[in-house]
This record gives sequence, structure tokens and C-alpha cells, in this order.
Amino acid sequence: MNPNRYFDPDPQQRSIARELYDSVAARPLICPHGHVDPRLFADPDYSFGSPVDLLIIPDHYVFRMLYSQGIALEALGVPTSPPTPHGERGETDHRQIWQTFADHFYLFRGTPTGVWFNDELSHIFGIEEKLAGESAQRIYDQITAKLATPEFRPRALFERFNIEVLCTTDAATDPLTHQQAIRASGWTGNLRPTFRPDGVVNLDAPGWRNNLDALSALSGIQVHNYATFIQALENRRAFFKSMGATATDHAALTPYTHELAAREADDIFQRALRGGATAEDATRFTGQMLMEMARMSVEDGLVMQLHPGSLRNHNPIIFEHFGTDKGADIPIETEYTRNLRPLLNKYGNDPRLTLILFTLDESAYSRELATLAGHYPALRLGPPWWFHDSLNGMARYFDQVMETAGLYNTVGFNDDTRAFCSIPARHDVWRRAGANWLAGLVARHFIDMDEAREMIEALTYGLVKQAYKL
Amino acid sequence: MNPNRYFDPDPQQRSIARELYDSVAARPLICPHGHVDPRLFADPDYSFGSPVDLLIIPDHYVFRMLYSQGIALEALGVPTSPPTPHGERGETDHRQIWQTFADHFYLFRGTPTGVWFNDELSHIFGIEEKLAGESAQRIYDQITAKLATPEFRPRALFERFNIEVLCTTDAATDPLTHQQAIRASGWTGNLRPTFRPDGVVNLDAPGWRNNLDALSALSGIQVHNYATFIQALENRRAFFKSMGATATDHAALTPYTHELAAREADDIFQRALRGGATAEDATRFTGQMLMEMARMSVEDGLVMQLHPGSLRNHNPIIFEHFGTDKGADIPIETEYTRNLRPLLNKYGNDPRLTLILFTLDESAYSRELATLAGHYPALRLGPPWWFHDSLNGMARYFDQVMETAGLYNTVGFNDDTRAFCSIPARHDVWRRAGANWLAGLVARHFIDMDEAREMIEALTYGLVKQAYKL
Amino acid sequence: MNPNRYFDPDPQQRSIARELYDSVAARPLICPHGHVDPRLFADPDYSFGSPVDLLIIPDHYVFRMLYSQGIALEALGVPTSPPTPHGERGETDHRQIWQTFADHFYLFRGTPTGVWFNDELSHIFGIEEKLAGESAQRIYDQITAKLATPEFRPRALFERFNIEVLCTTDAATDPLTHQQAIRASGWTGNLRPTFRPDGVVNLDAPGWRNNLDALSALSGIQVHNYATFIQALENRRAFFKSMGATATDHAALTPYTHELAAREADDIFQRALRGGATAEDATRFTGQMLMEMARMSVEDGLVMQLHPGSLRNHNPIIFEHFGTDKGADIPIETEYTRNLRPLLNKYGNDPRLTLILFTLDESAYSRELATLAGHYPALRLGPPWWFHDSLNGMARYFDQVMETAGLYNTVGFNDDTRAFCSIPARHDVWRRAGANWLAGLVARHFIDMDEAREMIEALTYGLVKQAYKL
Repeated sequence: MNPNRYFDPDPQQRSIARELYDSVAARPLICPHGHVDPRLFADPDYSFGSPVDLLIIPDHYVFRMLYSQGIALEALGVPTSPPTPHGERGETDHRQIWQTFADHFYLFRGTPTGVWFNDELSHIFGIEEKLAGESAQRIYDQITAKLATPEFRPRALFERFNIEVLCTTDAATDPLTHQQAIRASGWTGNLRPTFRPDGVVNLDAPGWRNNLDALSALSGIQVHNYATFIQALENRRAFFKSMGATATDHAALTPYTHELAAREADDIFQRALRGGATAEDATRFTGQMLMEMARMSVEDGLVMQLHPGSLRNHNPIIFEHFGTDKGADIPIETEYTRNLRPLLNKYGNDPRLTLILFTLDESAYSRELATLAGHYPALRLGPPWWFHDSLNGMARYFDQVMETAGLYNTVGFNDDTRAFCSIPARHDVWRRAGANWLAGLVARHFIDMDEAREMIEALTYGLVKQAYKL
Repeated sequence: MNPNRYFDPDPQQRSIARELYDSVAARPLICPHGHVDPRLFADPDYSFGSPVDLLIIPDHYVFRMLYSQGIALEALGVPTSPPTPHGERGETDHRQIWQTFADHFYLFRGTPTGVWFNDELSHIFGIEEKLAGESAQRIYDQITAKLATPEFRPRALFERFNIEVLCTTDAATDPLTHQQAIRASGWTGNLRPTFRPDGVVNLDAPGWRNNLDALSALSGIQVHNYATFIQALENRRAFFKSMGATATDHAALTPYTHELAAREADDIFQRALRGGATAEDATRFTGQMLMEMARMSVEDGLVMQLHPGSLRNHNPIIFEHFGTDKGADIPIETEYTRNLRPLLNKYGNDPRLTLILFTLDESAYSRELATLAGHYPALRLGPPWWFHDSLNGMARYFDQVMETAGLYNTVGFNDDTRAFCSIPARHDVWRRAGANWLAGLVARHFIDMDEAREMIEALTYGLVKQAYKL
Repeated sequence: MNPNRYFDPDPQQRSIARELYDSVAARPLICPHGHVDPRLFADPDYSFGSPVDLLIIPDHYVFRMLYSQGIALEALGVPTSPPTPHGERGETDHRQIWQTFADHFYLFRGTPTGVWFNDELSHIFGIEEKLAGESAQRIYDQITAKLATPEFRPRALFERFNIEVLCTTDAATDPLTHQQAIRASGWTGNLRPTFRPDGVVNLDAPGWRNNLDALSALSGIQVHNYATFIQALENRRAFFKSMGATATDHAALTPYTHELAAREADDIFQRALRGGATAEDATRFTGQMLMEMARMSVEDGLVMQLHPGSLRNHNPIIFEHFGTDKGADIPIETEYTRNLRPLLNKYGNDPRLTLILFTLDESAYSRELATLAGHYPALRLGPPWWFHDSLNGMARYFDQVMETAGLYNTVGFNDDTRAFCSIPARHDVWRRAGANWLAGLVARHFIDMDEAREMIEALTYGLVKQAYKL
């Protein structure tokens, strides 16, 4: 792979970008938000399985593209959910799945998945030839051999990747068993949970009633009304904090916030307990819970993250057969100025709160997000999220956010990934994209090289540690 | 004209772009969607008339710009519609109209119309001086002389332009007389109709009731209720297919889709027959008809195109005096994620359907269109449409669509033009813009030159043939 | 400061940009829209006060960024409004405020405020070192010394800045006392008022009832119903025109326009007089008043400007303590196609009207604004506004507007600033950004150098004079 990859072709900008990149290329990785399974680190001998177990089956970026071109998820080994009664699992021959993937790897040309995948093959697995149908089985053999070695246990890779801290994302009702096992094991990798209460605060979450029972059981607080619900949540936040959490995370269809009267919140909650909550109840309750979460963050200091605007499970055929997170979540237009006003008016001026916003609607960057973050002290902007975690997505973010919000109202990068082995590649893309952005500013004499050096350090290391209190 | 025009000024990117462009510059033109009048080819001796008949009067891109600067459409010879009773036709001296145009040609600097026009003058008419007031009459003479020659009959130009296939757009109630004449004439130019049923499926279409009578007459099916309406449409689709059609095309104010109960569809249809359909009826009926059209496409294999989001005839003064398509159609915000969900849920997983989406709302590119196309097997994205069929429009499209949808979920280019002589220039802009985009990826080491060569071939020739089944 | 600053790093484009920039760098400044206080010019000995009085306290771009990073407005000397009863004014030591600002000047890296500030320090105050905590007091001394000299009186700077005309923005109820004093003084600086009637035409404007009384008093027309209200407005417009105004300016939350029946307009007005107007009344009345203002512009020839889409005073804590214009105005999505249709249908074809549109919602550029301006003769597009008055904002504007609207449907630049000393820097950024845009077109062979020279002249001088009738 070319050492100047992803930099502008202009020789002057490229050379400045390279110098800036080199100044941070060896910095440890700070991973404040992601979805790596903590089980990987609970068992010191955890094995990733086959190349397909590692790289294909769990990666919705990979199989959504293949699916869009007519390849059935069954042919890629994606398990049905719930498992099909008579044991159908689709393709089980991982060599065949890998071949199918390699035959279609051209589909990823120019996509972030293509960029990450090539980087992983080259830098993590030492593959020197291009992945294609012809080379598929040779590369499969090479990866398989590597995965069998001790150097490819997750804990070993964690250290090789130079990860300073890795935060997972965990349901409010997760007992954090794996994190406890990791602590007990004496392994010193810095793994921290993140409190994600969507399953209990969104009344329309699948399995809400069961989640509530789990909340009661884990907190030791019998949740029977709004007041005990709030107590149980506070109890769990305290537990997460005791396990190292520094942040919470919240998904919502929209960033609607609204404070309900105590009585109204309890009325809705009681309707939900009886199974009679309406869609509007759920919307209003989520709006109220975002207010409560901000209040709790003010009190307990956990950083609050909000990821709105994804219409989950757009395709019911996929949802019914394969469950959630199968590449069928589609963004919608997302309004922040009015929706967040109640929350920001009440807590946005409070220095104890850090609220980090994300978006899938880039039209909000320059219009709403940068202008809000350039005013409210509590507000910070997260990096380009999901589909926009790409070279062009980052360039648009730098272009549209930075002039108005200022670099120092942003929080660096997070990889937000389930795919552990893609973490170094993702951070590398950010570091290169950031270096290239700053090199453009230097080459055009907006800033000088001293400023750019401080800014690339902030962009890749300083801001994220500070914002997430890591 | 400079052989490196429209490429990035960076010498490395420019040189790669040139190499990629050269590899496809001579490929035949595939024109799967457009509005060229089939009459041009029915009569082997068809003449374009004067330069103004050819280049000014029918081109709404041209006269909308002049109108925006205070030049009356009458002064440009644009005919009133219906024709004014006492025969007023505005300016009839085509030399004078041409002079007015040339005097104001500076208005088109940096616009796609300017780009196409200069290209046509140079490459089609061999004009070597710049168009301006001073040169206007000399150039008029040169074009006039050319148009008088046999080489400037439409059939001759069709071959000179190296058009492999040209699809027209034809109302469901068009008898395709010209296409039949062409077939009968033995001319081998590959001209194909496209089934466009807006005039009968949109209850608020001007002349809907008359269109319905024409539908009955042409199909031989007396349309008196929803069931016979559907039968008549299926009949016409079969006829279009027999005449070579491979696609349908649909305009709608929004991409709203919704399946009605059979009874409800018939109720609305009956109200419309009695002249009592409401605006909401029309909206719901269009939503239902898009579902029906997708169903028929699944069954008969015609590729379905959807062009939503244009508020037609925004300016009633222009509409009343000059009719439709006079430069007064203005885009609106367009939502796809929720609007298309019913259709995609029912047919989007079906490999028999190809649904090609277009947009005038670029904010949907990265948010909705690329993410939908990167998931649903039936979905493909059309090229930048109308106002966005421009060098910057293409750059934004490549930037915002390709990373998430992937190149192979797009369908190459279509010129979508009434202006036959602008076709080569429009395709050339796409080929140059595409080559420049890919050159940027090569220069930044995202892809290598072998990949880029395959991608430019796909972008300019392969994908469009495949998607449109040509 | 580098003489090639803000130009593309590509040597060819940079060299063309430099040549184009040089051709207009010395042109006088035309300032058709802004918020400079006319008092500066009424008193020939007006002094700007301290560097903090001049550069920090009145500049909401500056203190919003500092506030977003947790620095209280009190610490920056921003006065409370109304003044706090027991005289608290926050920090009064301007050296300390300047130190705080300089300590945090790194926050403005890569922002337009940083660009303007550095330019002002260098070109207006002759400062040669970088502003930072360490250099703060030395620079404070230098600026203080300069401000004490006669060369730093506003009238002297007006001439040094080479301002050909400066338009202020003045309430309909402003008696224009300062402008009258300027006239009487014999000073020949070309200062013109602009008629801004928001305080009387928006029923929900703070102090509306008092404003109405002032309108009666100033016009000499006792406003007691809609008809007398309109008469009073016409009277004030005539007065503004007699004082040199060539334009009006209008803010509205949305660009909604709608013509009311005369009776309905009066009903709403009467309800407002009685204090009983609803929010919907206010919306409808503003929609009606925009129609009336367009009608009056057709009649009296004043150019109409519309600045919609800012949700003012988003943060009530700031509003209650410090009043309006304190960095807490946040943009919202803004729809033009449907909202402006009534106004454009009635007046948009009339050559006597010039309506100049602005936006804070860049998604409307290519979708709605460029397409509307490329059709309606009365419509022109203003330059990037407020948060988008930046190098990237301008690049996006050129990219998204110019191909469809055409350069000649835009109106050059306006600085829109309260900060008099930032005017040269702001115009310089526009001239450089414009030269760089055109250089890109030349380098890519869209236009030739002769065309580019005419276009940069139009962009920086010609179009604005023509559009604003200056």
C-alpha cells in the first residue's frame, strides 16, 4: 500500500499531509465508542474462528453490498434469527462463502469497506496479492494460518493495535459479566463499558417488558412506576460507572426532546406497563427520557452521546429472517435546532454536561450542528457516523463543520465498529484524512505548520480523551 | 477545444484522467432515457429548420436563462400554447432571435448549457470562432449551410454520433406511429419507445379524462373501472414491449407509495371518472399506481424509472401563455426512505424488478438514495438529473453516492434531452467527469489503474446496457 | 500574510487566481448590506474606545465561540440587557478581557473569524507577530496607540478602506438622525440607509405596539387599521428613499408568502392592536406583508432583500441576560419553492422588482434557489450569508449555485457586518475566493481568460452596483 495513500495529488499538499500524518501515525488508538464484543477479551484463548467468521458473517457493511447485488444472505452464512426450526443455516462451507465474497470483491471499489479490507489484509494478515476470485483460496489459507497463532488472540491484537482504551456499548440490562471476568483475570487492557439504555427507555423497543424485568432484577429495585424506573436507571448508571464507564449512548429515531410533567410521564409509563402505550406515547417518552439522561449526566458526569436519525429494520423480510443490524437501517432527515431546544435550554449551558451529537443527515452539518456546537458550552460534535465514516464523508465533515463549530468543539474520531480487526484501518483513514485537510489549510496559508501540528494532535488524540474523560 | 478540458489541473490526475477518457471516448452512445422526438427518424428527409428552430426554440435550458434576465419568450420565438387567436407569434425573424441569443451568450458562462453549446458549435458544426454578438450572423450562416446538407438529416447524425440505441419517452396513449414508420422504412437505427403512463395514472394530469378515452381506444379495452384500467395498462405495456421498449418511466411530485385495498382503488377511480376526485385521492392513487407498476415490471420485465420531486409549472403566467416544459419547473425537497418503503418492502427484494431512482434533491444522495441502493437488490440509482446534469453536479454525485451505493448499483449515464444535437456533448461531459473522478481515486491510491479501466468502461458503457436490458 | 493566501495549491490554478485577483484587488468596496452603526460617521471625532470595545464586545462571532468553550459572556465584558440593577457588568478590565481572548485565540484556527482577525491585525493595525497569550499585551498596546491617532477615526478609515458606498440597516421607525447629521456635516462619504420594517410588520416582534406608535409619530399618519398602516409604511419608504436608500431588508422565520383578503388582513391587524393576535396570525400577517413589500418595491423601485431561516434567540438564558444578537441564533431548514410561489407568481415576472434572496440552509442552493433564480426575472441570489460567509461557504456557493443560476443572476458580495474594521478583510476573502473559483474554470478549460476577467469584475464590482441600483 502506498505510504501517501488518500492524500491530495498536489505535491505540496501531499508533502505537508505526509509530514502531519507521520507526526501522529504512531499515537495509541483511543476508541471511545464502538460495538466490539467484550467476550473477545474475557477468554484469553478466544479464537476468531475462520476468515469468514471474522470478516464476513458479522460485518453488515460487507453483506449489505453483496445483498444489494442479488446474493442471498444465506449464501454468506448469515445466521437466521431466530434460528430456523429445521436447522437450515444456508451455506456452511466457509471456503465457498469466501470464494463468493472474493468473486464479488470488485463491488467494493472506491468504498470505505474496500479501503478497510485491503488495509486489514495487508497490515494485519500480511497478504501481498490482491483479493479476487483467482486468489481467494490462497488468501483464505494464509488468513487461516495466521488466525491459528497466539499472535491472533484478541488480547494480543489489542496490544499490537496499540489500543489505549476501548469502550464497548452495553445494554442497561447487561450484567457486564465479561467486563467483570476481564477485571478478575488481571489482564490490563483498558476496556470500558458504555451505558446504552435504549431497550428500556424507548417504549417501542423490541422486548421492552422483558427488559424492564431484567432492569428490576439487576438493580434490585422493583420497577412499578416512573419514579422507581428512574431510580433503577440511576442505579445501573452508578454500576456502569463503577465498572469504568465514562459515557452513555442513546439512539432515537429523531432528536426530539420535551419535558413532561411528572404525572404525565408516570401515566405513559403505566400505560406501557399495561401494554397500552401508543406510538405517540413512545415518542413523547423518549423525548422525556433524553431530558432525564441529560439531567443524570449533569449529576454523575457520564458523557452523553446521541445517535439519531436511523430508521431501523427498513426491510421486514430481512428483519423477520435475520433480525436487527443486517444492513437494512436507512437514514432519514433529522432536525436538531427545534428538537434539541428543550434539552439545550435546560442543560446546554451547564459545564457539567458533555453532549456529543452524531448525524446521518449531512445537510444538518453546516446548518444546525456546527452552529449549535459553536454556541452551547455543553455541546460537542462527534465524527462522521456510519455511512459517512469514509474519506469523502470526512472531507465533507471537515469542510462543512469546522469553519463554524471550530475544531475544538469536535471530539476526534471513533470507529463505532463491531469488526475488531478493522479498528486500525479506520483510525488510519481518519488520521490521513485529517492530515490532508490540515495540509490543505497550510498550503492555502490559512494556518501555519505549528498550528497544523497542534491541530492534528488534537484531532487524533487530544480531543477525544478530553471529551470522553478518558 | 482543449483535449484535456474538464479534467483537474493537477498534472498527475489530469494525465490519468486523459488516459481513462481516451479508453472510452470512442465507445458507442447508449441513450436509455430521453425526449428526442421520434418524428426526426420517421421521415428520412426530415430537416431541422433554421439554427433557431434547432437550437433555441425547443431548448428550455436556453430560454429559461434568457427569460431570467428579462428577455421575453416572445422575443425568442417560443410559440404560445394554445396558439394566440389572432396569430401573434412574437418574433419570427430567426436571424434576429439568433442575434438576441448571441448578444446574451455570456450569461451561459460556466453553465452546462454553455459547455454543451460550445461543444456542439465546434464538433457538430465546425464553428471555429466564439459565439458573441459580433460573430452571430457569420455563425448563423455557417450553421444554416450545414443544416441544408444531407449529412445533417437526423438519421445521418444518428450514425455520425455513433448512437447504439436511443430510447424515446412516450405516453401510454401514444400509438407509436413514428416508431412503426421507422420499422417499416427498413432503417436500422436502434430506436426504442419507453412507456410513460403519467397522463393516465396521475388523476390530476391535464386532460386525464381524454387520455383515458384514448387508452380505451388504443387498448381495445373499455375502461370503466379499476380492473379494466389495469387491464388496459397491461395491454399497452405489452404493445410497447412488442415495439422494443425495455423500460417504463414515471413522474410524481413525491415518491409516495402505498397499497390500497382493491375496493378503495376502485372507489377513487370511480370518483375520478365522475370528475369528483380530490387532491388527496390523486396522491393516494399515484401511490397505488407506483405499486402496480412495480408489480407489472416484476411480471413483464420492463425496467421501472422514477423521476420525482419536480413541482411543474411553478409560474402560471408562463404556463397559461406557453404551456408545459418552459423552464418553470422547480424542484422540491424529496423524501425516499419512508415514501418508498411500501414498494421496496413488497418488491425491492425481487430480482425480477429493476427500479431506477432519480432525484432533484441532492441532499438525498448520501442520506437516502445511496443507502437504499446499497441494500435493496431491485434498486439502482440513475445519474445526476436535469439541473444536476453538469460537471459540478456529476462531481457531487460521485462524491456523495459512490462510497455507499458502490459504482455497481448505479446505471451509467443518460442524456434525458429533447435536443438531439446535444447528445454527444452531454455524453462527453459524463465520460470526462467520470474519468476525472476515477483519476482522483487512482492518484490518491484508492484503486489501481486496472480497476479504474474496468470502472470507466462500466460507467460509460457496461452498466447502462445491463441495467436497461439493452 | 502570504500574497497567494486562500488560492488552490495547484501552481497553474494559483497563478491564474493571482492574476484575476490582482485585476480587482484595488477596486473600491461596494457595501450594499450591513449593520455598521451610522453614529460612527455622524461625529467626526468618534473614537472606537479600547481594542476590546472595538474587536471583542460587539462581535458575536467572537464571543459565541468563546462561550461555546465555557467562557462566560460576563468575562468578556458583554453588557447585560437590560443592565443589571445593582450594576454588575462582569469583567471591566479590558486588558484582562483581551488576555482571555488571546489565550483562546487558537479556537479560531481555520474559522472565518480567525481569517478576518489576522487580516485586520496585520493590514489595519500593522501587527507583525501572532496573537497568543504571550503576545497579547504587546499587541493590545500597539492597537491602543493606533486607535488614539486621527487616522483611526471612522471617517478616515472609511476613506482608507476605499469604500465607495456603505449601506446601513435601519428600522422603519428609525428617524435616521445620524444620516441627517452626516448630510449636514458636509462629509462626502456615501452612506445610505436601508429600510428594515421587521419591528412593525412582524406582529410577534418584541415591542411591536411601541414600534407602531413610533411609526405613527414619525409618519404623521395615525395608524389605527390596516389601511393606515400601509400608508404609514409607504410614507416611511418615501422618507428612506429621500435619504438615499435604494433597498429594503426583511427577516422572517420562513419565506412564507400568501395574499390575504383586505378584510382578513385588517381583522388580524385589529386583533394585534388589541393584543390578541395568535402565532398563526403573525405568520399569516408576515406572509401578507412580504406580498405588500414586493408590491411597494414594484412601485417605488426599492430593491427587496429577504433573509429567512434564522431561529432567533434559541437560548433563553442568554436572551434574558444579554438580549438579542448574542450568537444564539440558529438556522432551520428553509423551503423556498412553495413558500415564495404566491409572491413570485404575482410579482416575479415584473422587471420593476428586484428580489434578492439569502439562505442559511445550503441544501436549498442547488435545489431551489438556483433553479428559481434561473427562471424568474425579478429574482437574484445574494452571496453566502452569515455562517456561510467563509472560504468553504463561498466555494460551496460557487459550486452549487453558479451552474444553474448563472453568475449574472447573483449580486456579488456584501459583508453584512457590525464590525466596521472587518470590512476590508471580508471583501478580500470574497475576491480571493471568487478569483480562485474562476481560475479553476480557466484551468479546466470551461472558460477562457478573457471571460474570467469580465466575470471577476462582475463578481466583485459590477453586479452589486447594478442589482442594488448604486
